[in-house]
Amino acid sequence: MRIAQVAPLDESVPPRLYGGTERIVSFLTEELVRRGHEVSLFASGNSVTTANLVPQGTTALRLDPNARRSSIAAHLAMLDEVRQQQDRFDVIHCHLSHFQHFPLFETFAEKTITTPHGRLDYSDLPSTYARWPYFSLSSISMRQRQPLPKARWVGNVYHGLPLHLYPATDRAHPQDPYLVFLGRIYRDKRPDRAIEIARLAGMRLKIAAKMDYSNRAYCEELVEQMKSPHVEFLGEVDDVGKAALFAGAHALLFPIDWPEPFGLAMIEAMAFGVPVIAWSQGAVPEVVDDGVTGFVVDTIDDAVAAIQRAYSLDRRQVRRRFEERFSASRMVDDYEAIYASVAAGVYKPEGDPRIVPIAGEGRSDQEWTNGNQISLNSRRGSMN
Amino acid sequence: MRIAQVAPLDESVPPRLYGGTERIVSFLTEELVRRGHEVSLFASGNSVTTANLVPQGTTALRLDPNARRSSIAAHLAMLDEVRQQQDRFDVIHCHLSHFQHFPLFETFAEKTITTPHGRLDYSDLPSTYARWPYFSLSSISMRQRQPLPKARWVGNVYHGLPLHLYPATDRAHPQDPYLVFLGRIYRDKRPDRAIEIARLAGMRLKIAAKMDYSNRAYCEELVEQMKSPHVEFLGEVDDVGKAALFAGAHALLFPIDWPEPFGLAMIEAMAFGVPVIAWSQGAVPEVVDDGVTGFVVDTIDDAVAAIQRAYSLDRRQVRRRFEERFSASRMVDDYEAIYASVAAGVYKPEGDPRIVPIAGEGRSDQEWTNGNQISLNSRRGSMN
Repeated sequence: MRIAQVAPLDESVPPRLYGGTERIVSFLTEELVRRGHEVSLFASGNSVTTANLVPQGTTALRLDPNARRSSIAAHLAMLDEVRQQQDRFDVIHCHLSHFQHFPLFETFAEKTITTPHGRLDYSDLPSTYARWPYFSLSSISMRQRQPLPKARWVGNVYHGLPLHLYPATDRAHPQDPYLVFLGRIYRDKRPDRAIEIARLAGMRLKIAAKMDYSNRAYCEELVEQMKSPHVEFLGEVDDVGKAALFAGAHALLFPIDWPEPFGLAMIEAMAFGVPVIAWSQGAVPEVVDDGVTGFVVDTIDDAVAAIQRAYSLDRRQVRRRFEERFSASRMVDDYEAIYASVAAGVYKPEGDPRIVPIAGEGRSDQEWTNGNQISLNSRRGSMN
Repeated sequence: MRIAQVAPLDESVPPRLYGGTERIVSFLTEELVRRGHEVSLFASGNSVTTANLVPQGTTALRLDPNARRSSIAAHLAMLDEVRQQQDRFDVIHCHLSHFQHFPLFETFAEKTITTPHGRLDYSDLPSTYARWPYFSLSSISMRQRQPLPKARWVGNVYHGLPLHLYPATDRAHPQDPYLVFLGRIYRDKRPDRAIEIARLAGMRLKIAAKMDYSNRAYCEELVEQMKSPHVEFLGEVDDVGKAALFAGAHALLFPIDWPEPFGLAMIEAMAFGVPVIAWSQGAVPEVVDDGVTGFVVDTIDDAVAAIQRAYSLDRRQVRRRFEERFSASRMVDDYEAIYASVAAGVYKPEGDPRIVPIAGEGRSDQEWTNGNQISLNSRRGSMN
């Protein structure tokens, strides 16, 4: 197929540092090329890909040291470029979360698919989406859909990682193990809970995280808490550092306090055979197989108890489950199925399909799937 | 005329607190209604107007305490609503700065006029504007145009204030006068320079400003500097507070270090007959009549000298010049002239007018006016 991938411009694809969305877009793009598709990647000009790069500027927005950047204008220019080239593609996969592309793509909406990568609980999204209800969306977890239950969800595709980047180690429980917190020092991520859990469990905690100074007061609090002797702060770690970090890890603590739409750190831990102890928020119950790849908890006490129970988990089984559910190959299988439906015209807004076929791995919880049975109002052409 | 005003949704119109753009949109809208035009105001739902309010949500984005808001989605919904109602208007005046409306307004661009209210030195703006070069823009100073010299500038309209809100006081120099700094505690505004100037001049300084904690380190520095006995910090002041503040003021210090596109605080001081001592940056040389309404300076020493020279200025003349150049009535005259040209089809992208007629008060500096002589590339309909 002739496929366009449209990435956010905040980071390059793949990102130099932090940037979950751009990493996933990179994994997806490279695997699609490997499978023989003709792929164009619309992304920051410093991106690196085997696809046909349609470069947008020379630098990504977040790390541009030289210039004052306009995110709105930079994305508008890219989206206009996609529009001008749209005849060249069978499928256009857009990875923006806040619908900025809808006005520019409305005349060829039927061959687009949008994966929002962020949380969707912004009060402006439902009423704005309702103005472009013929745009098909694909979620990264069923929970992500909750604030937009009436949108035209046509797939649910969990993220996946390339197995060759995470070689299986197949080892037993490490000697002198420690706990790990991986992510950003940010209030919603609750590193403070991780520190408290480790203290109560009498275990060491290694924190591999970037300070997010947009919440400076919280960072200052954390610096104090991290002075505790059982805590070691590593700062931001790269892929090599992650492998070393997880080699001696008993479990990943993921004690979040926000509706995390996916949680890449969880599947990274699983890739190394490390169990995940995570709060029952956002996508956690979908990503963690409770009792197999880790434990889903609601309280500090439960988390401390789970640390003991984690000794009973088979770490090779954690890795196997990761390979089954969260490989890049599985992710690309799912997206290919969606693209095939798009290219076959299945998602055309004409007619009134009522029930849109679902591609990808979507669990059948009643609450979750309600959102799929929508009445398609083929309101378009308000430009005429 | 049937006129739509499209305001940013960050604040209500008029704003509850800080918010220059929304204040100007309010003054403009109310005066247009008074003159008998049929005006619709697209703005935050808590706006107050005599025009027909087309409310967007119930709360402005910046002060919404309850919800997570999406600026992109909120503005998209408003712009789509304008598009749906566009047949009802002769002229659509949009006050957004970063072109988000261009894709939605492209089929009726000839009856729109855009006033960007912010600085335009974002590196993404020129190449993005070039994709929609048939959109007419109106500047708030000639200096504002500099980063976008090739845009289709069809007018330059300085801001204006309603005279009834600023009654003339017609008084002599105050007893025991002090200097004033009005604005935000923000690095670019350089309150530190104001403190130093007042110290060197041996005068008291009253700082009426909101702490902008997006630059916390600078605010902390300033708090230290403001402990100096010659400095009094008043926090944010309302309109009544401003009148009292300027009643005893010798001069306004406006020692900015950024390309200020207009500078409302300067004309507020003038409205009270108070001279302005301002750095030669951004719109300052256009707004201050050097030697009449104040002094344009480049150094601390010059600023200190200007404080002495300000005793020789006629404060009634400062007020008269304010009335001539910066009344809301003059501002609305200028915009009405632009609207008349828009409604008469003067700015239609068809043909190649080369030189677009200029409405409003634009000075004829060569550098400034180069931007007006543009070749109009009537590139449209990239949707077809």
